[in-house]
Amino acid sequence: MDLKQELSKKAAIFNRELEKYLKNGYPEILYDAARHLPLAGGKRLRPCLSMLSCEAVGGDIQNVMPLAVSLELIHNFTLVHDDIMDKSYLRRNLPSVHIKFGEPTAIIAGDLLFAKAFEVMHDIFDNPSVFKRLNFGLINCVREICEGQQLDMEFEKKQDVSEKEYIEMIRRKTAVLFKFSAEGGAILGGGTKEEIKALDKYGESIGLAFQIRDDYLDMSSDEGTLGKDIGNDIRNGKKTLIAVRSISNATGDDKKLLDKIFGNRGASEQEVKRVYTLFKEMKSIEYAKNAALEYSIKAKKALDILDNSDAKQVLIGLAEYSITREK
Amino acid sequence: MDLKQELSKKAAIFNRELEKYLKNGYPEILYDAARHLPLAGGKRLRPCLSMLSCEAVGGDIQNVMPLAVSLELIHNFTLVHDDIMDKSYLRRNLPSVHIKFGEPTAIIAGDLLFAKAFEVMHDIFDNPSVFKRLNFGLINCVREICEGQQLDMEFEKKQDVSEKEYIEMIRRKTAVLFKFSAEGGAILGGGTKEEIKALDKYGESIGLAFQIRDDYLDMSSDEGTLGKDIGNDIRNGKKTLIAVRSISNATGDDKKLLDKIFGNRGASEQEVKRVYTLFKEMKSIEYAKNAALEYSIKAKKALDILDNSDAKQVLIGLAEYSITREK
Repeated sequence: MDLKQELSKKAAIFNRELEKYLKNGYPEILYDAARHLPLAGGKRLRPCLSMLSCEAVGGDIQNVMPLAVSLELIHNFTLVHDDIMDKSYLRRNLPSVHIKFGEPTAIIAGDLLFAKAFEVMHDIFDNPSVFKRLNFGLINCVREICEGQQLDMEFEKKQDVSEKEYIEMIRRKTAVLFKFSAEGGAILGGGTKEEIKALDKYGESIGLAFQIRDDYLDMSSDEGTLGKDIGNDIRNGKKTLIAVRSISNATGDDKKLLDKIFGNRGASEQEVKRVYTLFKEMKSIEYAKNAALEYSIKAKKALDILDNSDAKQVLIGLAEYSITREK
Repeated sequence: MDLKQELSKKAAIFNRELEKYLKNGYPEILYDAARHLPLAGGKRLRPCLSMLSCEAVGGDIQNVMPLAVSLELIHNFTLVHDDIMDKSYLRRNLPSVHIKFGEPTAIIAGDLLFAKAFEVMHDIFDNPSVFKRLNFGLINCVREICEGQQLDMEFEKKQDVSEKEYIEMIRRKTAVLFKFSAEGGAILGGGTKEEIKALDKYGESIGLAFQIRDDYLDMSSDEGTLGKDIGNDIRNGKKTLIAVRSISNATGDDKKLLDKIFGNRGASEQEVKRVYTLFKEMKSIEYAKNAALEYSIKAKKALDILDNSDAKQVLIGLAEYSITREK
């Protein structure tokens, strides 16, 4: 099985569906702003997850398409607002929505994507009780994503973040939507209670693995040159698993170094490099890599109870990809 | 019947319910930010409207309370985001959420209120089909509010806004949520098709009357001194019904004056005063007052088909209040 090809096929089906739901509207500028990011591509991981979960329990992929669109719209709504908060200029190699359309329109465009996500859910072809269950599940995701995003910001200013707190933060910020994508796909695919629970577990684990891998990639992508991102993360005190692990395990001079430099916006290149070297010496980068691996194994293990199928094989491949991907 | 007293009684019932739904949460700062505005008071017009509509069709007010809370949370979510967009410092005599908690947290707090509104809806004690109908109605409101807010911003830069375009803008920005409040209350009160339609019409008309009265009050509140707000609205080119009416009816030198001054951020006090005097001479302020009166009459007329009740009398009083209120 060629994972990349399988995911591309699913993404192509999804993109056709997404375009149907993201037609232009009035006022045009607002709809252009709302369409900017979702139509700029992306991996479509959450939609693919819901489609694969649906198939893995023997369901018809068509039943899950409105939910798949909702998931992607929620993801995009959070990105539009996050980019405003983080003052990010680029996203998917394009100017962020607030850079292209201005901040006021970007705030509304995010709100509109949020609303659209819940509008699209009304096309779920199932009985109203299932609709109600999925609606509650998705709204719960949004609440947790908000909480996770706030925690992420607060942790930058908090020195003593525990590993448990970090995991809880990325669970809310990232993993809940992965979890719900898999769970929702299984529900709409007509899965049994056990199958739904298994895919729920799979989704959460793969979400955690993805986020930790993201942190790892940020810290190792341009090791040789110690690029701008690594420097910024260290100067901003961004609490990745690597940082959290290092801070809680450092003692003596190492601890003093981190207290002085980590989260210090005025830190020099030299100082940033010393912190980075310390992360490596403490094997924290390796530690994060292993933590992602463990979640990936947990994800695959959750699939054990499912009958074998092509979709199951792709889900297994996805769990492996989540910790081997280079971007 | 003492309208003020009747509304206060309803608002008190509502406030107890709202507080139950707005308990603190984690992370605390985010929940403090989300609670800041809804717990700061306000007229609670939308909840009152839903409660009165429910009673006016013979329903039990308890059935409508979760919806009443949802309506107020949606209203507050839009205010939190609007204040960021408009760079407003004050709201309900308190610092705006973004002033007190910073813009990033204010954006998330607005998103959280939006999510909370749809979470609370799940407490509606009715069958899932009614839930689905109300859920769709409220999500439709949010979409239209987003569109209306964007139009409001765009109209500031557009000189030739027609009266029809203005009405369509305030219909989306303000009237849809009033309309849905009354409609939703009637649905949950077990109203007939005709009663629901009547209250729907009532809600929309009163919403339009309220918004036009708002514009009127802004333009007449401190006539003697020609306060800061009037000056700002003229300099920003804010398209109120008064402005729209004046611009479309002005000819000759009057037209030239408006073209030059209205929407000119560098306009002098003297120039602003000339525009204001022109608005008065053209009887546009009077015109707006009358337009609000007409919508208020339309609102009352829609109630004709309802049996008489205390709630109906309060709704009639509310329609009168919408155009006589001084703040």
